[in-house]
Amino acid sequence: MSQLKAVEYCAASPEVRAVYDDIKQTRQVDDVNNFWKYIAQHPPTLARTWDSLKEVMAPGALDPLIKELLYVAVSVTNNCGYCVASHTAAARRAGMTDEMFGELLAVVGMANETNRLAVGYRVPIDPAFE
Amino acid sequence: MSQLKAVEYCAASPEVRAVYDDIKQTRQVDDVNNFWKYIAQHPPTLARTWDSLKEVMAPGALDPLIKELLYVAVSVTNNCGYCVASHTAAARRAGMTDEMFGELLAVVGMANETNRLAVGYRVPIDPAFE
Amino acid sequence: MSQLKAVEYCAASPEVRAVYDDIKQTRQVDDVNNFWKYIAQHPPTLARTWDSLKEVMAPGALDPLIKELLYVAVSVTNNCGYCVASHTAAARRAGMTDEMFGELLAVVGMANETNRLAVGYRVPIDPAFE
Amino acid sequence: MSQLKAVEYCAASPEVRAVYDDIKQTRQVDDVNNFWKYIAQHPPTLARTWDSLKEVMAPGALDPLIKELLYVAVSVTNNCGYCVASHTAAARRAGMTDEMFGELLAVVGMANETNRLAVGYRVPIDPAFE
Amino acid sequence: MSQLKAVEYCAASPEVRAVYDDIKQTRQVDDVNNFWKYIAQHPPTLARTWDSLKEVMAPGALDPLIKELLYVAVSVTNNCGYCVASHTAAARRAGMTDEMFGELLAVVGMANETNRLAVGYRVPIDPAFE
Amino acid sequence: MSQLKAVEYCAASPEVRAVYDDIKQTRQVDDVNNFWKYIAQHPPTLARTWDSLKEVMAPGALDPLIKELLYVAVSVTNNCGYCVASHTAAARRAGMTDEMFGELLAVVGMANETNRLAVGYRVPIDPAFE
Repeated sequence: MSQLKAVEYCAASPEVRAVYDDIKQTRQVDDVNNFWKYIAQHPPTLARTWDSLKEVMAPGALDPLIKELLYVAVSVTNNCGYCVASHTAAARRAGMTDEMFGELLAVVGMANETNRLAVGYRVPIDPAFE
Repeated sequence: MSQLKAVEYCAASPEVRAVYDDIKQTRQVDDVNNFWKYIAQHPPTLARTWDSLKEVMAPGALDPLIKELLYVAVSVTNNCGYCVASHTAAARRAGMTDEMFGELLAVVGMANETNRLAVGYRVPIDPAFE
Repeated sequence: MSQLKAVEYCAASPEVRAVYDDIKQTRQVDDVNNFWKYIAQHPPTLARTWDSLKEVMAPGALDPLIKELLYVAVSVTNNCGYCVASHTAAARRAGMTDEMFGELLAVVGMANETNRLAVGYRVPIDPAFE
Repeated sequence: MSQLKAVEYCAASPEVRAVYDDIKQTRQVDDVNNFWKYIAQHPPTLARTWDSLKEVMAPGALDPLIKELLYVAVSVTNNCGYCVASHTAAARRAGMTDEMFGELLAVVGMANETNRLAVGYRVPIDPAFE
Repeated sequence: MSQLKAVEYCAASPEVRAVYDDIKQTRQVDDVNNFWKYIAQHPPTLARTWDSLKEVMAPGALDPLIKELLYVAVSVTNNCGYCVASHTAAARRAGMTDEMFGELLAVVGMANETNRLAVGYRVPIDPAFE
Repeated sequence: MSQLKAVEYCAASPEVRAVYDDIKQTRQVDDVNNFWKYIAQHPPTLARTWDSLKEVMAPGALDPLIKELLYVAVSVTNNCGYCVASHTAAARRAGMTDEMFGELLAVVGMANETNRLAVGYRVPIDPAFE
């Protein structure tokens, strides 16, 4: 028996519903996605994670599209299937085109390659970069 | 005895020098950084990596600053010390401000956190994201 | 054609059966889980891995529940789907409650976040920690 | 020129000082460690990270020692030098003995090994673990 | 709606077809595998990646079987499901036996274990290895 | 105060000395390297790790040079500084030439790149690879 399951709105506590409502209003969506329904099994994690994400992903010195591109870059590097799917969708909603997506993955691929070359050749940091 | 060492311009083969010259001209710098001097120990890797990086990091649908931000995001996630130092410097040269850097790392941190929450709670992909 | 497959008890060599028998007796289970049936394709790996795991996971200065929590923390960080599923189940059998699981994932998430902040800001180690 | 540096108390804004004061009082220490001084370069990250960490690491269903052991397990798996040093020290302050530390690393090592065996042998999840 | 899809030969541009033709001829296969059909959504990535891979995987100081074994080792460590499946198949075509595969995964498992022990115990590099 | 330190032969227990003696004899070296001296702080880890490594790295279907190349590939991918240094040295002792090393890192770099492309494009496994 799996003890992990989604917490749907109808079965949620008022505390959890309040977070769901805020997500739906902030993002202008009809329902929250599975990520929120699963972490809602631990309400303090749901509330804290949403508060943090809302703050971090808000427009600032970097605009929301760039922030979503960064999220995809990290998720791909970490090989998180759910995260790649959900943040690729979020990036498209924020304006990512096919061409941008192609360039994004090209950069992510190259960075992962050169990261290992730097480690393998044990390259010392240039004084100019310290 | 370490058998790894930088290949300096004066000791380089014509093949390696040609790559160094192209890097210096493309980037408008006086000398190449240690990464190139170390991977030059295997000239085919030097030539191929530079050709690829030059193509991937050129302005396109994403501008060079965004590409450098993505490079930092991957390098931080992979914990590559050299790469974090060199690409943070490159991002600053491309226009990254202190505020952008703070927001970049905030996104990278959050993405690494929520990636693990998605894995730990074994969240299934929403049909809308497939 | 897949050349990877489970080695079931009925088809196993006496050497493999002996390991299966010891796993079943030690864990008081009727059958070994897929992990053992798959690595049994290379009998020396089966025997060595079981011997090591049996020693490492035995009660000691840390009790079995804590050891299973640690196993889940590593498996989540590595994004190993099989390992998250099997060790979450093992942790529940060892006494992990829903609340413990929620706190476990909260710590794992935070650690993955602050690990990257430490790398991104290139924080030097405090003398007191050396 | 490095643009990354510690924000010392004497040079900190009232906003940053308030966080430092809370860290010092909560942990009963005379000064905050470098992690906080570096992320203080982006005050919203400092405040949010401290709020989250304070909540997550507080005693709950898991006691503080177990939480620190989990933090070390993640930090070792991610190969974060600063984090391994600082959280190993924190775990010792919370009561970790040499024997516990030895067992902790033994579990972390084994988990990293078996995680890869599960991936390499492409082990399907047992129905009982779903 | 998924915006990711395979680019089949019949629907491919002449530029993409030329790469597919070269892959099929070089590898003596009737069709390219999904990896190429998916990255063909960004033709510059397809062309560059194939050129690089063709150069890197060609016989040299290391023979093709060893190179495929290395590819499997990295893919297992990164937990890339697609890559483990495709490169395990490629390694078998290049001559990998069941026994070689068992030893390969045993080494990969041990390396992942001892990597973490080295990090956790913070082992300083021996002067002889510098 | 650091509580981590090398266990030198002269200060070692008979149990630890026996392992050191076996390492020295097996490898034909005058002293064991730091890895063993540090993990000797937990004697069961020392004994178990040496037993496992000795078995796994012995000549078999794969020769010792190939096994050391695989070890370097994993260590580079995991970004373990100590491990890259020590296993690069071990691979050279086992016969790795400069050219082999250059090709090894080229493969490791490419594998890390294409692993991420496969994840980012969410490539489904070809039926032929199942």
